[in-house]
Amino acid sequence: MKVRDGRNRIIIESVKPEIDRGRFPIKRTAGEKVVVEADIFTDGHDALSCVLLYRKDGESRRHKRPMEFLANDRWWGEFVVTELGQYRYTVQAWVDYFKSWREGLAKKFDAGQDISVDLLSGADLVEQASKRAAGADAKELRESATLLRSIGGSPDRVSLALGDELAELVARYPDRELATTYERELVVVVDRQKARFNAWYEMFPRSCMSEPGRHGTFKDCMARLPYIANMGFDVLYFPPIHPIGQTHRKGKNNDPLAKPDDPGSPWAIGSQEGGHRDLHPQLGTFEDFRLLVTKASKYGIEIAIDLAFQCTPDHPYVKEHPEWFRWRPDRTVQYAENPPKKYEDIYPFNFETEKWQELWKELKEVVLFWIDQGVRIFRVDNPHTKPFRFWEWLIGEIKKDHPEVIFLAEAFTRPKVMYQLAKLGFTQSYTYFAWRNTKLELTQYFTELVQTDVREHFRPSLWPNTPDILTEYLQMGGRPAFMARLVLAATLGASYGIYGPAFELCDNRAKEPGSEEYLDSEKYEIKNWDIEKPESLRDFVARVNQIRRENPALQGDWNLRFHPVDNEQLICYTKQTEDFSNIIVVVVNLDPHHKHSGWVELPLQTLGIDAQQPFQVHDLLSEARYLWHGNRNYVELDPRVVPAHIFRLRRRIRTERDFDYFM
Amino acid sequence: MKVRDGRNRIIIESVKPEIDRGRFPIKRTAGEKVVVEADIFTDGHDALSCVLLYRKDGESRRHKRPMEFLANDRWWGEFVVTELGQYRYTVQAWVDYFKSWREGLAKKFDAGQDISVDLLSGADLVEQASKRAAGADAKELRESATLLRSIGGSPDRVSLALGDELAELVARYPDRELATTYERELVVVVDRQKARFNAWYEMFPRSCMSEPGRHGTFKDCMARLPYIANMGFDVLYFPPIHPIGQTHRKGKNNDPLAKPDDPGSPWAIGSQEGGHRDLHPQLGTFEDFRLLVTKASKYGIEIAIDLAFQCTPDHPYVKEHPEWFRWRPDRTVQYAENPPKKYEDIYPFNFETEKWQELWKELKEVVLFWIDQGVRIFRVDNPHTKPFRFWEWLIGEIKKDHPEVIFLAEAFTRPKVMYQLAKLGFTQSYTYFAWRNTKLELTQYFTELVQTDVREHFRPSLWPNTPDILTEYLQMGGRPAFMARLVLAATLGASYGIYGPAFELCDNRAKEPGSEEYLDSEKYEIKNWDIEKPESLRDFVARVNQIRRENPALQGDWNLRFHPVDNEQLICYTKQTEDFSNIIVVVVNLDPHHKHSGWVELPLQTLGIDAQQPFQVHDLLSEARYLWHGNRNYVELDPRVVPAHIFRLRRRIRTERDFDYFM
Repeated sequence: MKVRDGRNRIIIESVKPEIDRGRFPIKRTAGEKVVVEADIFTDGHDALSCVLLYRKDGESRRHKRPMEFLANDRWWGEFVVTELGQYRYTVQAWVDYFKSWREGLAKKFDAGQDISVDLLSGADLVEQASKRAAGADAKELRESATLLRSIGGSPDRVSLALGDELAELVARYPDRELATTYERELVVVVDRQKARFNAWYEMFPRSCMSEPGRHGTFKDCMARLPYIANMGFDVLYFPPIHPIGQTHRKGKNNDPLAKPDDPGSPWAIGSQEGGHRDLHPQLGTFEDFRLLVTKASKYGIEIAIDLAFQCTPDHPYVKEHPEWFRWRPDRTVQYAENPPKKYEDIYPFNFETEKWQELWKELKEVVLFWIDQGVRIFRVDNPHTKPFRFWEWLIGEIKKDHPEVIFLAEAFTRPKVMYQLAKLGFTQSYTYFAWRNTKLELTQYFTELVQTDVREHFRPSLWPNTPDILTEYLQMGGRPAFMARLVLAATLGASYGIYGPAFELCDNRAKEPGSEEYLDSEKYEIKNWDIEKPESLRDFVARVNQIRRENPALQGDWNLRFHPVDNEQLICYTKQTEDFSNIIVVVVNLDPHHKHSGWVELPLQTLGIDAQQPFQVHDLLSEARYLWHGNRNYVELDPRVVPAHIFRLRRRIRTERDFDYFM
Repeated sequence: MKVRDGRNRIIIESVKPEIDRGRFPIKRTAGEKVVVEADIFTDGHDALSCVLLYRKDGESRRHKRPMEFLANDRWWGEFVVTELGQYRYTVQAWVDYFKSWREGLAKKFDAGQDISVDLLSGADLVEQASKRAAGADAKELRESATLLRSIGGSPDRVSLALGDELAELVARYPDRELATTYERELVVVVDRQKARFNAWYEMFPRSCMSEPGRHGTFKDCMARLPYIANMGFDVLYFPPIHPIGQTHRKGKNNDPLAKPDDPGSPWAIGSQEGGHRDLHPQLGTFEDFRLLVTKASKYGIEIAIDLAFQCTPDHPYVKEHPEWFRWRPDRTVQYAENPPKKYEDIYPFNFETEKWQELWKELKEVVLFWIDQGVRIFRVDNPHTKPFRFWEWLIGEIKKDHPEVIFLAEAFTRPKVMYQLAKLGFTQSYTYFAWRNTKLELTQYFTELVQTDVREHFRPSLWPNTPDILTEYLQMGGRPAFMARLVLAATLGASYGIYGPAFELCDNRAKEPGSEEYLDSEKYEIKNWDIEKPESLRDFVARVNQIRRENPALQGDWNLRFHPVDNEQLICYTKQTEDFSNIIVVVVNLDPHHKHSGWVELPLQTLGIDAQQPFQVHDLLSEARYLWHGNRNYVELDPRVVPAHIFRLRRRIRTERDFDYFM
């Protein structure tokens, strides 16, 4: 053991938030707080002072915030991050001799002991502080020291010694010679607010033509913008928009033999017409694309594209960079496989190539290219099949100059792999939400996501469906199931998305029993959706998204708490703003087939509600209002009508005799 | 982010055991296992191989142990530590191309796919392995590669490719070029077995004279050895044996004014006769002391002494090293105080002195001095009032050359401080046991100690009493309380101690109501204990210690588990050896005043007992035997007889019709 300064007496440990001992940053969005706690203690009985130190990367000066003692050697402080990029924070503490002295003096004085020598000791401490001070403060401290040393006039000396004024003045000039700073500076990555609160709409641009039989274009997408904006989405995500390969192209319903007019899967990237930096010619030109980005932004919508780092055999990379692929002994390129399944239309990159540096560099150039086209949000296809260190490097490189960029990880895989991707930099992450259907499943999963350290790095994005995932619940439950899952996604999570128009049109036809693949999946064919169908959920979706926008309680994840209902098919949870000005109570009937009723139990005190007074719950979906009393109240939900309540809880502020009025 | 080798694809995290990310070592005793687990995974679907690497400090070669996959990306391995000192361990993993290939091949072959090119790929892998091998293995691998490449004879090639023989051979020569080693080597400190399993007896040597009125000596202590050995203790711990100061000496019952013949507190160290490296003259000579150490060892007893790093005003250090103390403005030395309490007979060291290096060095010399006198166990007085870094340095320095030395931390303070002292090196630690009396308190506290990571660094030592602690429970409960607390201390913990003869003579007279101080405390006067009193618990203590020695289940802490009893005054717990050859069930009546009965519920399956067959429980305290059936059985304990059962559970191995016989 090397001892730098053996006089350093303070231990700082168990600092929170801290991920894997500072190996990874925590995440916040601009305007959010970082609440820091630490165990801080020293030997013996001396008093401590502790501060939270933080700075924005690039700033040389560290800001200081006082920390307060909680209990059991735990200290607490907080700061607000305002700018995008990285901040660093740490904790510093020192033995506070003046504070120790003052506390001891008060006890001795109260016990009637002789404190004359103690006053001289205090005078020394005050004089030392005066040497660290300047100007008027130094002068005042010097004078106080002199007064403490003066003989006689004891009551004056004692009231000076024990008074808050001197303590505050001395505290301004602490003796930090032996201060201990926590061994690490911890990093917080600050993203823009959309990283926390967003509603995605996934759409195949080739399917959004107004008349059947034509290949949709970016211009068609522009015409579709009002529809999407009316539903209230703020991110429009396109599956890959690059040229699609011909070799081993898949036909309708994933047929291994494509017909000549089959358009192929957009994820089969690369043809003679180009690769990851090119557009599928039938969608339009770069000019069209950039115009679409601009038009969308006028509707408050950002365009997100797909980063699918894989190639078809026709991708230009295969000829230009054969060293980026794995070659088999028969001199063919190793296609993707998950034995016995073969994906002969897909060549994965060989990230173990000795030319990995060139490969990484090129993939970074691809991202920068799309940033140049105005894209700031990327949905990343299957990141868990590419090396972790690659993503950490790529995201770090991009965010250096573009801290506003958002990367959503589409990894549906084992929990530790998903969390690792989040830790190393993905801004948002797909979740297991699609397969969490029962009250117990939802409660356990979301408790893990929002009440454990996971929340420091993993920002969940909730998708009831995707082009790959038509869950059994949606298949079986029909329209009520789509409504219930929409409300759950949009209120359990501040970030969610749907794959449309399949979702709002309640397309629930699976390819075969037991499969989650859509029948006639849009992945392999151009679809002509009738978005004007009267059964469409578009108005319901619009209502839910409007509720999200109007209620700040729904714009974050960490405030989610579940509450008991005496019916397993009814789930109840609340979200509220920190100041309780906005309290939302959601109740969802998880059974799409039957009406259910039950008694909901709310912790009124925790919600700031007077349990002695009735209060109003206002259903923002139906506009119905109910008067509730006490912590147990009755609900009844018929899935054939609406399977959910999204209540805004309104506190009672006057009695009925004053006129009934709720704020 | 710096990328050393971007082709390195493996993540190793959440390694256990690991304290504060490797900042502190874990602890084991010689012969114990270190079971290591880690999350290990890579991108994609490739198979991994993982090994546990370890070495004794000083060895250049690392040993390897294979790790096995558990579930959820968790891997497991173990090794045994045999020698005292430090070992280092870490984890290594690599993508196992051959394993991945073989798994894929089996699936493709089962699916009837063409595997001819796959066999060639495998041949390449086998050939690469041959280049890492030598001699006969290299030859066999080369031949296998040739066979895999041969045209025709396909069934042979496939059975070779899928056979275990080739897999095992290739596994011996793995391709570790891109292997990932966990970023840290973790340390395990290996102590001798006494660090885990011991029974301490604390005794004031000055009180062990055979006739009243005389000052006891080391020679008297020698005469007392058979008594202590018969009770079954293996550590005999003396409060400080150094010269006692005169200035501000405390009289009987801590009277601020000592009478001329008051002997003073042994913790008031230092007089004109010397300091920490000297003996109190009335106890005897160094020759006597060394003879005592030798004699004790013949009884299987080690002598432990007290390290109380503090001085009286008369200590030679005060004159020789005034810079080691804190001086007040009136040119007096700052005595110890905890306002408004003053301890004017004690000068603490000022560890913030600029001469801290000299101070540390001298204190180390004190320890080395006593090691030279044959002492290997130190009870450290109030370590929490000296700096943490000092202890970490001191213990580290001593254990470099003397890994057999044991330091017991006497810190009765806040939990985080106690755990910190254990982390930084104390071998054993006093606990809150003395104040944990109810079933809930005992269950919660010991669950924290033995079932959380705390157990990796904190070795609890359980003391029902000390010269400073006569608990209310003992004061009120009398003899049954002493018996119950003895059984709890000796069976909940593998390490425990009593302060005698006060304990076995059931001295329960407190100085005043509400105080835990003994009346006429031995700290301030010489006592003449009548150890032959018939009410003495000496035989009961001897029986309990014999049970501990004869039952290996009681010689470790980690196997402790609590079980339900339907009576809050009855506590039940088990301990068993890993192979279930020794299973102990303890039931204690916590109420010293009343007889209690209840139904004990044991998890028979976990204990390896057939729930369908009766089994015997043999009370090792009373020699009574009971036949129990199923998991719920009746117990009844009268504190006026014996307030506890210590059952050895004996499995039934024959039926009654074969003769009743239990092993």
